[in-house]
Amino acid sequence: METKQTDIKLKTPVRCIVKLGGAAITCKNDFEKINESNLVEVSSQLREAMMSGSSSGPVLEMDWSKRPGISETSVTVDAFKEQEAFGYNSFVVIHGAGSFGHFQASKSGVHKGGLNKPLVKAGFVATRISVTSLNLEIVRALAREGIPSVALSPFSCGWSTHDRNIASADVSTVVNALDCGFVPVLHGDAVLDESLGCTILSGDVIISHLASHLKPQFVVFLTDVFGVYDRPPSEPNAVLLREIAVREDGSWFVVKPTFEGTDKQVEISVASHDTTGGMVTKISEAAMIAKLGIDVYIVKAATEHSLIALSGKLRDEIPEDWLGTVIRYVP
Amino acid sequence: METKQTDIKLKTPVRCIVKLGGAAITCKNDFEKINESNLVEVSSQLREAMMSGSSSGPVLEMDWSKRPGISETSVTVDAFKEQEAFGYNSFVVIHGAGSFGHFQASKSGVHKGGLNKPLVKAGFVATRISVTSLNLEIVRALAREGIPSVALSPFSCGWSTHDRNIASADVSTVVNALDCGFVPVLHGDAVLDESLGCTILSGDVIISHLASHLKPQFVVFLTDVFGVYDRPPSEPNAVLLREIAVREDGSWFVVKPTFEGTDKQVEISVASHDTTGGMVTKISEAAMIAKLGIDVYIVKAATEHSLIALSGKLRDEIPEDWLGTVIRYVP
Repeated sequence: METKQTDIKLKTPVRCIVKLGGAAITCKNDFEKINESNLVEVSSQLREAMMSGSSSGPVLEMDWSKRPGISETSVTVDAFKEQEAFGYNSFVVIHGAGSFGHFQASKSGVHKGGLNKPLVKAGFVATRISVTSLNLEIVRALAREGIPSVALSPFSCGWSTHDRNIASADVSTVVNALDCGFVPVLHGDAVLDESLGCTILSGDVIISHLASHLKPQFVVFLTDVFGVYDRPPSEPNAVLLREIAVREDGSWFVVKPTFEGTDKQVEISVASHDTTGGMVTKISEAAMIAKLGIDVYIVKAATEHSLIALSGKLRDEIPEDWLGTVIRYVP
Repeated sequence: METKQTDIKLKTPVRCIVKLGGAAITCKNDFEKINESNLVEVSSQLREAMMSGSSSGPVLEMDWSKRPGISETSVTVDAFKEQEAFGYNSFVVIHGAGSFGHFQASKSGVHKGGLNKPLVKAGFVATRISVTSLNLEIVRALAREGIPSVALSPFSCGWSTHDRNIASADVSTVVNALDCGFVPVLHGDAVLDESLGCTILSGDVIISHLASHLKPQFVVFLTDVFGVYDRPPSEPNAVLLREIAVREDGSWFVVKPTFEGTDKQVEISVASHDTTGGMVTKISEAAMIAKLGIDVYIVKAATEHSLIALSGKLRDEIPEDWLGTVIRYVP
């Protein structure tokens, strides 16, 4: 991750970078289908979290485009004229692909590179079409909640990789958008790779990159389960890991829960997890962010728990009945 | 247009920059409606023009996404494996907005700036949603014709203006996409403006900028009329201007037609035209491109004449029965 970035000066510090997990906002087993009810609830919670501290007027929609079944726009522009300009907490949104892009990428092997092969080139085009379709729908859903969202596609931003690691990812466009009061919406994307020709830049890598440059107060991962478990959450004895501490060297250990009567901490088997969704990879990536002194919350989307996480209340105190995983630096 | 651009080195020279006029690809009086039949024909002609000189195998679609009414993708990926890698003429596509974006931009006054006003900020978001929706549909239409199209939204590329003139518009992302064999698809967009806060960057300004940096062999404007006329084409006596010559100083004059028996050249009244669609502005902008030694063809989209223009045949000779306007530098 060597980027020639000058020091970033934001007008207002970034409060939160939030990842909308692909599994949370799409129907995973239904090709290119958005989980509409989750997306609406997530957008509404984001609005609430962003506006906290501001007067909460009526929701003024910013998506004035045609919607399926409605031929004309229904927006009443006049309402905006009466509204006072207001500030709100600065957020960046990154979303995964879920049931968008995955088919196109895996059929063609875009992540392995080789743009001279017609199949890979076509897959690159097809993957971008799919993920940008999803991106557009998410931007629209946020705009309908009155969130001034703007699409920033990593490929369009000129971001590229070298052997799958970020080689060039100038964040100035993100910073300029934030400084103007917009909410940048990025996503996992097919990008050019200096050594492979092309590859997939995942949403999680984008978050790490942005977190290290923008230094948000906290990072929230919205997923389709309550947090990180010690084994696949579908297994009957799976234990939700409430709190994980990260050491200076990036290693981490489970603080909560502890098993009473023993001083043995919860152990996670690398083998069992890396075959079932890369839970360890996920914790390691979150640990990289936490190491910067940025709290990371992994929580189920569209629940009371996600609203608490997004509001930033967990920074002061973690309620006993809050369900989710906190990953935090312990000096 | 002062940009700190280093010299651009393209692997292959750009053959053509083509503008898909908003009036040609959308239904102008029907809110956010694409002119599907025109778009399909334009895409097909672009494919033919790009492939000229290459073996023309079957069309291998690169849009593998769901389409309205069809729940699954119908793509047969296997066909790509048998296909040889092939080269084709390097094209850049820029499109206007037509019935997309216009309503959102004019209702909010995005072009005038003032992002601190809630209405302008909302209009910025709404305009981008509308124009990027159109952009996505155009990228998809091109991909369905086997054209490896990739969306490059000017705002996402980090392009910005100062008092409505381009301030920063790094073309390296466009160049990298071209070098990898993609067809970049740009569009008129809402962008940040250093003095006004925001404004609209028009497709025509983008073309001038790209033409001066990429030095294409020729530029084609696809419109909804046969070319440039001496008065609004709806008027009964309107005369199609066949050829316009541009002098070193940027001034221009009509070469064809001439009125027999007189040596009076066709005159265009600035007053009558600037109120009816800015025909003079259009010629002046084309003249700026022609001055660089780049032929400009203004032609009706989805006709035999547009195919001839896109194929580059007009560079050698302009057939007597070709309908359109050629704007060309005369040293």
